[in-house]
Amino acid sequence: MLKIYDWHMAPNPRRLHIFIAEKGIPVEYVEVGGENVKLADWYLEKYPHALTPMLELEDGTCIGEVPAIWRYLEELYPDPPLLGSTPKEKALVIMWEAFARDDAFYRAGDVFRNTHPAFADRGLPGTKESIPQLPELAARGRAAMARFFKKFDTQLASNEFVAGDHFSAADITTLCAIDFAKWADIHIPPEAKNLQRWYDAVSARPSTKA
Amino acid sequence: MLKIYDWHMAPNPRRLHIFIAEKGIPVEYVEVGGENVKLADWYLEKYPHALTPMLELEDGTCIGEVPAIWRYLEELYPDPPLLGSTPKEKALVIMWEAFARDDAFYRAGDVFRNTHPAFADRGLPGTKESIPQLPELAARGRAAMARFFKKFDTQLASNEFVAGDHFSAADITTLCAIDFAKWADIHIPPEAKNLQRWYDAVSARPSTKA
Repeated sequence: MLKIYDWHMAPNPRRLHIFIAEKGIPVEYVEVGGENVKLADWYLEKYPHALTPMLELEDGTCIGEVPAIWRYLEELYPDPPLLGSTPKEKALVIMWEAFARDDAFYRAGDVFRNTHPAFADRGLPGTKESIPQLPELAARGRAAMARFFKKFDTQLASNEFVAGDHFSAADITTLCAIDFAKWADIHIPPEAKNLQRWYDAVSARPSTKA
Repeated sequence: MLKIYDWHMAPNPRRLHIFIAEKGIPVEYVEVGGENVKLADWYLEKYPHALTPMLELEDGTCIGEVPAIWRYLEELYPDPPLLGSTPKEKALVIMWEAFARDDAFYRAGDVFRNTHPAFADRGLPGTKESIPQLPELAARGRAAMARFFKKFDTQLASNEFVAGDHFSAADITTLCAIDFAKWADIHIPPEAKNLQRWYDAVSARPSTKA
């Protein structure tokens, strides 16, 4: 069975949990995080890139980065497609997933990691080095989230899902970003009615509780 | 012929130029940037996401984000493969391309956009809003680049190319990030001998002059 090293409560691994639940793929999750916001030492030894989630193949290859794991799983379990079917759909999923990541997911992370006391010396993921918080980045992140809400509300005025007619990985990252932003008390503004309609519909999918 | 809206001197579109040159794909480039570091107004109207490069399909669909355009082109022109051949290779290309982007390309951008006088009120790409520069982000970006040089030097000690045995999109983003960092006077450190060996070999490919 596929073995995935996981930090179940963290926002980034959730992008993978939903993907796996939508496809119904049997996997074994190995918890390496925990309540104390530090990755286990034995995990850092195995995977010095110091990020979760990570898929370990039977030959020992470690595959990190959610879109990389997504691609591997999509090749092995193509149905239902979550990375698009036609060349155009595949491109649009990557494009909108990238917007959700850069405009919202990373920005919610900027706000959270640069304000929350638990990350006082860990302003950046992916390193064991001590990185001081930068409060100005939190302000910039909040402004970016406001732009994101507007941009995605516009997109969802004429599309059922983020990348078009089908639920895809772009919806997953968008949902995870919006829920992550709540940790920093950032919420969908009332005027973003199309985004709210989409959020309510997507949040009702059983996979989002995985 | 495929039409690509381009800002030829900018670092991000270069990731696409090299990819296209490696595959020998015939495309029409339409220049929308220029010397004055502002995108043309008519382009912002057509593509409000305000980024380059962008591929416009015959049905009017606008596909932005380099990895999205890569995916589209890889589907239409599969040889030579630049996004991997097997599921494992495909995943490793995405993983290492993501590291090159997050650990180096975006960080070189942080340094450059938060220090260069031409970007005094444009600390972030992808928006027409005025974003003040943040000098602390430049310092954080320099530290991130130091970690990147070490991480990739280690990877290239036992791999010919960034993602393994074949030249791929991961090499392209790594090369573009290193050359972009030079704009901010950041260079491969002398101890990173594996990275330097790789850099010299990859820079000698004709596609890198495209």
